[in-house]
Amino acid sequence: MTWLDEIRWDENGLVPVIAQEAATGDVLMFAWMNREALARTAECGEAVYWSRSRKKLWHKGEESGHIQKVHEIRLDCDNDVVLLKITQQGHEPGIACHTGRHSCFFSKLVQGEWQPVDPVLKDPQTIYK
Amino acid sequence: MTWLDEIRWDENGLVPVIAQEAATGDVLMFAWMNREALARTAECGEAVYWSRSRKKLWHKGEESGHIQKVHEIRLDCDNDVVLLKITQQGHEPGIACHTGRHSCFFSKLVQGEWQPVDPVLKDPQTIYK
Repeated sequence: MTWLDEIRWDENGLVPVIAQEAATGDVLMFAWMNREALARTAECGEAVYWSRSRKKLWHKGEESGHIQKVHEIRLDCDNDVVLLKITQQGHEPGIACHTGRHSCFFSKLVQGEWQPVDPVLKDPQTIYK
Repeated sequence: MTWLDEIRWDENGLVPVIAQEAATGDVLMFAWMNREALARTAECGEAVYWSRSRKKLWHKGEESGHIQKVHEIRLDCDNDVVLLKITQQGHEPGIACHTGRHSCFFSKLVQGEWQPVDPVLKDPQTIYK
């Protein structure tokens, strides 16, 4: 019985993961991990997710250089959601979103419409070469 | 076409939701909403989730008094995860977790073991009467 066995993996063997910037508290992104992804994350100290679309392990930053250094791994009271405290590396301020923004949560509901309220920090075309 | 139609609901008609304390940035809990839950949340300004276990709408705090006042509703770049900026009401400091703790993410991975690192602020037996 290891700490990985204590997690309540869903019917697809995945767990939802929230990545929060340690220094600011900003929620940067949300993704999924399988057992191997979480084991590797703990081992190497960098976020490794499971890409549901590509169906393979995804070492965040492997293409963009936007590595997530992991400071803390937390688990919720139902043992079925993981929270990472991270530093978003590769750019200052950190870019977690594939659109070149700090956080993936850049759309805000304003008077019944989703409005992008955070700036693009770097052109995605120069991030993914 | 409304803002609700822009959300990519999953195969069960749900979207994952992260509740973050506006004042502190603390991630307090993670839950799910269906279309009606999110519509009501936006309308009444208090978090209404979908309880997957009880299969019904769950106005957070309806039993405990620990209502979540919603300041902002955000959506991520894939339109499939919602982030709420909230104030956790009913106790000071706020209690979001059914265990009587501030946050549901009170377990931290320490040397290969999950350790509860945050205190119980109120006995759950006195919260749910």
